[in-house]
Amino acid sequence: MVIVMNSKATREQIQHIVERIEAAGLQAHLVDGEFRTIIGIIGDKKAIMSLPIEAFEGVDKALPVTSSYKLVSREFHPEPTVVDVDGVKIGDGSLVVMAGPCAVESREQLLEAAQIVRAAGAQFLRGGAYKPRTSPYAFQGLEQEGLEYLAEARALTGLKVVTEVTNIHAIETVSRYADMLQIGARNMQNFHLLKEIGRSGKPVLLKRGLAATYDEWLHAAEYIVNEGNPNVVFCERGIRTFETYTRNTLDLGAIGVIKRLSHLPIIVDPSHGTGKWHMVKSMSMAAVAAGADGLMIEVHPDPERALSDGPQSLNPFNYASLMADVRELAVFLRKQAM
Amino acid sequence: MVIVMNSKATREQIQHIVERIEAAGLQAHLVDGEFRTIIGIIGDKKAIMSLPIEAFEGVDKALPVTSSYKLVSREFHPEPTVVDVDGVKIGDGSLVVMAGPCAVESREQLLEAAQIVRAAGAQFLRGGAYKPRTSPYAFQGLEQEGLEYLAEARALTGLKVVTEVTNIHAIETVSRYADMLQIGARNMQNFHLLKEIGRSGKPVLLKRGLAATYDEWLHAAEYIVNEGNPNVVFCERGIRTFETYTRNTLDLGAIGVIKRLSHLPIIVDPSHGTGKWHMVKSMSMAAVAAGADGLMIEVHPDPERALSDGPQSLNPFNYASLMADVRELAVFLRKQAM
Amino acid sequence: MVIVMNSKATREQIQHIVERIEAAGLQAHLVDGEFRTIIGIIGDKKAIMSLPIEAFEGVDKALPVTSSYKLVSREFHPEPTVVDVDGVKIGDGSLVVMAGPCAVESREQLLEAAQIVRAAGAQFLRGGAYKPRTSPYAFQGLEQEGLEYLAEARALTGLKVVTEVTNIHAIETVSRYADMLQIGARNMQNFHLLKEIGRSGKPVLLKRGLAATYDEWLHAAEYIVNEGNPNVVFCERGIRTFETYTRNTLDLGAIGVIKRLSHLPIIVDPSHGTGKWHMVKSMSMAAVAAGADGLMIEVHPDPERALSDGPQSLNPFNYASLMADVRELAVFLRKQAM
Amino acid sequence: MVIVMNSKATREQIQHIVERIEAAGLQAHLVDGEFRTIIGIIGDKKAIMSLPIEAFEGVDKALPVTSSYKLVSREFHPEPTVVDVDGVKIGDGSLVVMAGPCAVESREQLLEAAQIVRAAGAQFLRGGAYKPRTSPYAFQGLEQEGLEYLAEARALTGLKVVTEVTNIHAIETVSRYADMLQIGARNMQNFHLLKEIGRSGKPVLLKRGLAATYDEWLHAAEYIVNEGNPNVVFCERGIRTFETYTRNTLDLGAIGVIKRLSHLPIIVDPSHGTGKWHMVKSMSMAAVAAGADGLMIEVHPDPERALSDGPQSLNPFNYASLMADVRELAVFLRKQAM
Repeated sequence: MVIVMNSKATREQIQHIVERIEAAGLQAHLVDGEFRTIIGIIGDKKAIMSLPIEAFEGVDKALPVTSSYKLVSREFHPEPTVVDVDGVKIGDGSLVVMAGPCAVESREQLLEAAQIVRAAGAQFLRGGAYKPRTSPYAFQGLEQEGLEYLAEARALTGLKVVTEVTNIHAIETVSRYADMLQIGARNMQNFHLLKEIGRSGKPVLLKRGLAATYDEWLHAAEYIVNEGNPNVVFCERGIRTFETYTRNTLDLGAIGVIKRLSHLPIIVDPSHGTGKWHMVKSMSMAAVAAGADGLMIEVHPDPERALSDGPQSLNPFNYASLMADVRELAVFLRKQAM
Repeated sequence: MVIVMNSKATREQIQHIVERIEAAGLQAHLVDGEFRTIIGIIGDKKAIMSLPIEAFEGVDKALPVTSSYKLVSREFHPEPTVVDVDGVKIGDGSLVVMAGPCAVESREQLLEAAQIVRAAGAQFLRGGAYKPRTSPYAFQGLEQEGLEYLAEARALTGLKVVTEVTNIHAIETVSRYADMLQIGARNMQNFHLLKEIGRSGKPVLLKRGLAATYDEWLHAAEYIVNEGNPNVVFCERGIRTFETYTRNTLDLGAIGVIKRLSHLPIIVDPSHGTGKWHMVKSMSMAAVAAGADGLMIEVHPDPERALSDGPQSLNPFNYASLMADVRELAVFLRKQAM
Repeated sequence: MVIVMNSKATREQIQHIVERIEAAGLQAHLVDGEFRTIIGIIGDKKAIMSLPIEAFEGVDKALPVTSSYKLVSREFHPEPTVVDVDGVKIGDGSLVVMAGPCAVESREQLLEAAQIVRAAGAQFLRGGAYKPRTSPYAFQGLEQEGLEYLAEARALTGLKVVTEVTNIHAIETVSRYADMLQIGARNMQNFHLLKEIGRSGKPVLLKRGLAATYDEWLHAAEYIVNEGNPNVVFCERGIRTFETYTRNTLDLGAIGVIKRLSHLPIIVDPSHGTGKWHMVKSMSMAAVAAGADGLMIEVHPDPERALSDGPQSLNPFNYASLMADVRELAVFLRKQAM
Repeated sequence: MVIVMNSKATREQIQHIVERIEAAGLQAHLVDGEFRTIIGIIGDKKAIMSLPIEAFEGVDKALPVTSSYKLVSREFHPEPTVVDVDGVKIGDGSLVVMAGPCAVESREQLLEAAQIVRAAGAQFLRGGAYKPRTSPYAFQGLEQEGLEYLAEARALTGLKVVTEVTNIHAIETVSRYADMLQIGARNMQNFHLLKEIGRSGKPVLLKRGLAATYDEWLHAAEYIVNEGNPNVVFCERGIRTFETYTRNTLDLGAIGVIKRLSHLPIIVDPSHGTGKWHMVKSMSMAAVAAGADGLMIEVHPDPERALSDGPQSLNPFNYASLMADVRELAVFLRKQAM
C-alpha cells in the first residue's frame, strides 16, 4: 500500500499514521516530495488491508500495490492448472465445448438437444434446471425433474453435465446429477454459495458478474479455492455497458488478462455475451483465436419454441456449422503453436 | 410487445408469426409501412413474454411496450405505500434516518455508535453482522454475536434495528433480532433470498444492485411482494460507472423515477454511494431535496479504527452536524410543500 | 509516480529504471518489500509524465500520485474563483439560473422564451444557434440568424446570453453576440477548440463529456486557463451509464468533487441530465441543496412543437413553479449557512 | 415510430396526437390494448423525427422502429463496399494492416519505424502528427514537420500513410501528405470535422468514440457519406467501461454488428483497445478470426523511449512475431471460407 498525503498534511498527521502502521506490526517508508509526502507500507497484506487509511486525517488517497488473492494468482503458481472433470481436461491446450439449451424444458427437448450436441462433437451438455430470471413471472426451471433429465441424457450420450446451482440447499442434490457446478453471473458475489461450493470439492464453472472487475472475479475464485476446492474454471459471458444493441458486451480481453493473473483456465460464452444467435459463430472463432480453453454455446432443437433465451440459441444446423469451423481453427492454432 | 420485421421479411414469415401469436391466445395487429411491417401484440403479458420473438425468422427486433411487474407498479396502485416498521413510518412524508457503523465490530463499538445515533435523532440503527466482502481475507462480521449486540443496543436506545441478511439460513435468526431485513446490493438478484424474505413478512430494505437497471430493481421487489410481503423500501446506494474517484456514482434521479413507477418508498445511502465521508453531507442534503423518504448513513465512533468502510464513515461530530442541517431542510421542505 | 515492480523483476531491471529516472533529472526512492520492490519518483511532473514507465521490463504497473492540472487545482489556489459575466457573478454563493430553449428555432419562439425566462427570474438566456445532432437529418440550428435573435432577446430583456460554439471558425462571430461561450459535451476534448476559446478570453461554460472522468474534465479546463482565460465554469449534464430509462445519469456528486479539487464554479443541467421534463424540478432542488452555483434549464414556450429536446423542456407554467421553489430553497440554504 | 400511451391517457389526448401526426403528413395506426393504446406512425423518417413525441401529454414513451442512417445502411445497399486507398483495397476479403508509432517523434524514429513495418509486411504506416492529449502539458505532436516525415517515409517504403486530422484547418494540409485521414475517438461527433472531411473526398478511417453506441457511430459515418464521400472505414478501438485494468474494453462484437448493419469495412485497433502491449497479439488474432477487414497496430523502435503510448506499443521483435501469426491465420481462414 502506498499512502499519498495531501499537500497540507502536517508532520503530526504523518507521524500519527506512521505510529498506527508500526503498531499494526508493519513498516512505514517515507518519501518526501516537494509538495507532499508519500508513505510506503511493507508487511502482511491482511494487516495492511485492515487499516482504514483513507479515514486518517491528512491523507489524500491510498494506492493498493498488490491484490489480496493468492491461491488463484499466477505469481505464486506459475504453471497453468488443468481441471479434470471426470476425465475431460480443461486447460491442457485442447478446446472444450459445453453446449445445450438455456433451460431444461422437457425430457424430449433435452434428450434431443443432447443428441445434437453429441453428434457435433462437444464434451459437455449444459442446461439449466434452476433458472434465475429477472421477472418472477418468467419460467423458473424444472428443478429436480430437470436434473433427472440431465442425468438421463448423460447416461445416453456420455456427455458430462454442467448446470447452475443457485442456492446452498441445492448443492448436494445438483452434485448427485452433475459433473460440474455452474455459478451464474448474478451469484458471482454470493459469498455463502462460493464457500459452500468450495467445501463440496466439485469442479466449478464461475461466470463473471455483469459488472464485475477482473479483481472481483479473481477474489470470487479465491473464496472457492480457499475452502479447499482448486477446480475452478472462469467463464467470460459479457459485461454490462452503455451499448444496448447486444445483450452484453463480450470482453475477449478477459482471456489474456485472466491467463496472465491466474493459473486457472477460462472459457467463453458468446451466447450470453451477445444475446444474438447470428453473432455466436464469429465470437466463438474470436474466443478460440484469443486462446480460450473452451466455449459454452446455447443450442436448442427449435429456438422458436424455447422457453428461455431463444434469440441467442443456435438451431442444430448452425451449431453443426459452428463446431466444424471452430474445430478446424483449434487444430490449425495448435499446429501453429508447436 | 411490438415486433419490427426486417425489410426483407416475406409474407410467409409474417403469417407464421401471426399464427404463433394467435396460437398463444393473443391478438396480432399488423401495421404495414413502406419498407417494413410492424406487428403489435395484445393480450396477457405472461403469454407474450413466453414467445421468443427474436428467434423467429424475418424479425429485426422486439420492443417491449410494458414491463412485467404489477404489484409494485404505481399504474395499478396510485396511492403511495407507507411501510410501518414497528411504529416508525417510512413513506408518509417524514424523513427517516438509519445510521450506524458499517459492521458490528464489538459490543463497545456498537453501543457507543447507537448512543451517538440516538442522540443526533435517527430512528434506526444500522450495522452489519454478516458482511459480504470482496476478499475472503477481509473481516466477515461477528454473525450471531453481532446480532445480539444489535438487540442490546435496541433495548438500550429504543432505536429500530436494520441489518443485512445474506443467505436463506440466516433469515429466521436475523428476524428474531432485527426490525427490518436488508438485502444488499450483491444479493439484489439472489432470487431464492428474495422469495424467502417475501415469505417471512418482515419489512425489507432492498438495496439497488451495482449494475441494476430500474426495471431489474422493480422486478426484484416484485419477487418479494409476490410472496405476500408488501413491506418493501428501496435504497439507492450508487451504481458502477467508469468514474473511479468515487466508490460508486450516486444516482439521485432514482428517487423521482422510482416514485413515478412504483408506490413503494425509497431512501438513499450516500455513504456507499460516494465512498468518501466528506461527500456524505452534501449528498444527504441533495437526496432530501429530491424527495427521498429517508437516509442511511454510516457513522463510526472512531472511523480511523473501523474494520470496514472507515473512509466513508462519519465521525460523531460530523454526523451531528449533518443531522442538524438535514432536519432543518426537511422541515423547510415540508412547510414549502404545504 | 510510484512504480510497482513485478515479483520476478531482476536487480538489473530495477537498476536500469533508476538510471532512466535519474537521467531525466528526477530522483528515485526504492522501497523493498518481501515479494517486490516499489520505486517512488520525485521531481518535475512534466518530466515524470514523459517516461513511458509501463513499457519498461519488470514493471507491473505505474501508479500516478498526483494529476497534472495545476491552474485549475484548488491545491495551489485555495480561494474559490468568482467568474464575472458582464456583471453577473457565478461562484459567489448566489444561485445563477440560465434558461431557455434547446435550440433557437425562430424569432418569435426565442423572444417569447426570453420573456418567460426573464419573468421567472433567471439571469441568463440559453439557446443553441449551432446544434450538434447525432443524425445529419435532424435540425442543425439557425446559425448566424439564431445569434441575431439571441442578441435581440438580450437587448429586450437584459438577460445575458450563453450559447454553444462548435468550431473554431465560429468563435469570433459568436463572441460578438454572446456573453458566455458554451463548450458542449461532445467537444469537451476538442483540444483545438479549447485552446482557441482560451485565447478569446470570453467566459466559458464547459460541459462535461458523456464519458469524461473528473480528471479529464479538469484537464479540459486546464487547456483553457493555460491559454490565459481563467473564466471557466463547469457544467455537470449527466454521464452515460447502462441505465436507459433516463437520457443520462445526472452525477450530483460532481458538485462536491469539483469544488474539492478545483477553485472554479460548477452549475448543473438537469434537463440533459435526465432527458425527462418531469424530473427537472426535483433534480434542480437536489443540485441546489448539494451546493451548485447555478442551474441550466431547458424551457420552451410550447414543448410539443420544439424542434429539439421537447421531451426534456419545461413549459412556462412548470418553469415558473420550479423557479419559485428553487429560489426559496436557495434563500433558506444561504440563511442556514450563515 | 411506435408511441406507447400511458394507461391514464384520455381519448382527447390520443386524438390530439393523431391530429399532429396527420398534420405532419404522416399516418397514425391505433392499436387498443386492455390497459393502454399504442400508435404506430408510418411515413417519412425525417418528418417523424421532427415530432417531439414524448413532450405530448398522455405519452408514456416513444419507441423508434428504425434508425435514421440510410447511406451507410446495409438494408438499402446489400453488397459490401470496398474502399480503395490508392490501390490498396479494404473490405475485399483480404487483411489490411496499418502499423507504426503512436506519434511521429523525430525523422529517425519515424523512418526506422517505417522500415520495421514495411519489413514485417503491412500496407499502411500510421503515426500522429497532431496528437489529442488529455493534458495540455503532454507532447502535442510535431504537426507540419511530422507530416513531412510521414511523406518521406512513404516515398522510401511505398507504404500508404494514414494520420489523424484534429481540426478543419488541417484537412487540406494533411490531405497533401496522407493517403487516408483518421478521425480520432474524441472527434467522432465533431460534426463540423465530419462534414468537411466528407467534402474532401479523401478515404477516412473513423474511430469509434469512447462511449459511442453503434447507432451513433453509424450516424457519424452517415455525416461523411452524406457530403459525397463514400470511402469510410470504421475502426473499433475499445470503449470505456467500469474495468480499469485495461485502458479500454475492446468490443470485438462490433465487427459482426457493423457488418450486419452497414456495407462499409471495419478494422480493429487492439493497441488502444487494451492499452497493454502483451495483449495486442491475442486480440489481433481474435479480431481476424471474428472477420475484421484489417488491424491497426502501434509499433515503436524502442517503446521505452516513446513520447506517447509506450506501454501499448510493440517492439520490432514482437511486431514481427504478431505479423507472422496473423498472416498465417488470415490465409487459413480464407482457405476455410472457400
